[in-house]
Amino acid sequence: MHERIPWLEDAAREGPWLVAVSGGADSLALLHFLAGAGFEGLVVCHLNHQLRGAESAADARFVAELASRLGLDCEMGEVDVPAAMRESGDSMETAARKARLVFFARCAVKRGCERVILAHHADDQAETVLWNLLRGSHGVRGMRVRQRIEVDAGDGQRVCLDMHRPLLEVRHSELVAWLLERGLTWREDASNLEPVAVRNRLRHEAMPLLADITGRDPAAALARAAADAADLADWIDQLLDQAEILDPQGRLHLRALGALHPILRRAALKRYLAGHRVPDITRALIDRATALLDPGNPAVVNLPGGRLLRRRAARIWIDG
Amino acid sequence: MHERIPWLEDAAREGPWLVAVSGGADSLALLHFLAGAGFEGLVVCHLNHQLRGAESAADARFVAELASRLGLDCEMGEVDVPAAMRESGDSMETAARKARLVFFARCAVKRGCERVILAHHADDQAETVLWNLLRGSHGVRGMRVRQRIEVDAGDGQRVCLDMHRPLLEVRHSELVAWLLERGLTWREDASNLEPVAVRNRLRHEAMPLLADITGRDPAAALARAAADAADLADWIDQLLDQAEILDPQGRLHLRALGALHPILRRAALKRYLAGHRVPDITRALIDRATALLDPGNPAVVNLPGGRLLRRRAARIWIDG
Repeated sequence: MHERIPWLEDAAREGPWLVAVSGGADSLALLHFLAGAGFEGLVVCHLNHQLRGAESAADARFVAELASRLGLDCEMGEVDVPAAMRESGDSMETAARKARLVFFARCAVKRGCERVILAHHADDQAETVLWNLLRGSHGVRGMRVRQRIEVDAGDGQRVCLDMHRPLLEVRHSELVAWLLERGLTWREDASNLEPVAVRNRLRHEAMPLLADITGRDPAAALARAAADAADLADWIDQLLDQAEILDPQGRLHLRALGALHPILRRAALKRYLAGHRVPDITRALIDRATALLDPGNPAVVNLPGGRLLRRRAARIWIDG
Repeated sequence: MHERIPWLEDAAREGPWLVAVSGGADSLALLHFLAGAGFEGLVVCHLNHQLRGAESAADARFVAELASRLGLDCEMGEVDVPAAMRESGDSMETAARKARLVFFARCAVKRGCERVILAHHADDQAETVLWNLLRGSHGVRGMRVRQRIEVDAGDGQRVCLDMHRPLLEVRHSELVAWLLERGLTWREDASNLEPVAVRNRLRHEAMPLLADITGRDPAAALARAAADAADLADWIDQLLDQAEILDPQGRLHLRALGALHPILRRAALKRYLAGHRVPDITRALIDRATALLDPGNPAVVNLPGGRLLRRRAARIWIDG
């Protein structure tokens, strides 16, 4: 499996490392693999989503016992996802994802470790790509092997998390085979913590249908497209770094923006908005922001979240 | 409909123009629209694929009568697709596509006109994108509004065709609505000349399922992704034009190639191979070609079709 995990080349073996472990095959394979590959200071982090009653409790016990058996530290958390959904109005997927991030943030503070390793694999990646593509606005876009995110740990404290997804090129079937070869066990349904309509239907209906229609494995093609798209995004980031589009106050130079190819210009605006934590950055928003470059257009664009993007004195910046 | 057809801005109204007309709604809308938009010298080109017996003959009569009624010239052709499939071993889709290209090439020679207008629309584009994506190797790639191709007209004569697809941003439903508003008729099944397993199943099974799962219109998102991918391809072409990677003999400079970002390098190799009419340019082939840049690797790569790609004297080129 090593050759499918280029992440291994650069990853420091010294801990601590937070490892997200649901108890399902994917995260169990991840945990055993990391332990076998010489990673030290692994902290097993398990969040009980309480979505499957006694089964969820049994998952938690299974994970805690395994950590103890492997001599690893363990962080156990609980969240009442249905209650969180009622409170926030979020979908189950969103509520569960937010709860996991807060849990990881708390583990990070407690352990003084911002590095989190997740078991997302090539089949997860393929579903993500298809979903992003079909939602529009984003083209091919998958999860990244490395991703830094800022999370509110719940008490107003903002915590940076450094997420690692070493298994993005490994298939779920390979992880299961790897466990079986070693006689390792897992909790069958623990990784299906999210019986979420869209993702589950993409996995169980769309992928098999697409495989049947095309006679090919859609997951492999989609995961590779995501890897190519990530390469492209990295390259565009490099080009933007070189383009000197920001003034010393961090505002966008109108002239420098205007000189960019439209593709780079859109990427620059997207990066600027994302860097200022503007939510819901759609293609339509980028198009409205782009229109600011034309002095014939109004000099202000409303941003989601209530702030304004302004054009003044040959600059564009976020007000408020 | 005009605002959805940016092609109109640049397209010369003077003829001749070859227009591919099956008799179905899409090509009928195209023909009536072009006539109404002031295009002159339209030559209606209809190829009877003989796949639907008497119905195919009736399609041909319908198209010929319409052309006559509109006062337009007409080119009618016939091809026995099942016989062509038996002879070549091609799938129905491939055999029909080849037959159409040969037919257009002959029309082009006869009429002294290499411009062909096709009725492909946004839903066709979405299916193409999904199919290309799932086949792997290509990421998001759709049909282009303009495309030059070289076709063997059947007698060894190579003919350049300049294909135009003005309707790529227009939905099939819009074309039907446009015809209905004007009381114009069409042959219901004539555009389904290709009862081809993959494309038909993408249209009738995959697209509705994806729409149902995501609650969104997958065709719109896929067609937009294709438009973005086309912009990206154009930009990369521009960058390659500026990169001075060819020597005066048209061979690739090893050093110039090596200095490119891997994304541009792959694009440069792909363009070089495509420009030399190498068939079946897969990602795996590009990766093998890229390996030529490493002096530690063998200096020759076998190409599909029997030619060789060689590294020698700080150049890479096709031998034979």
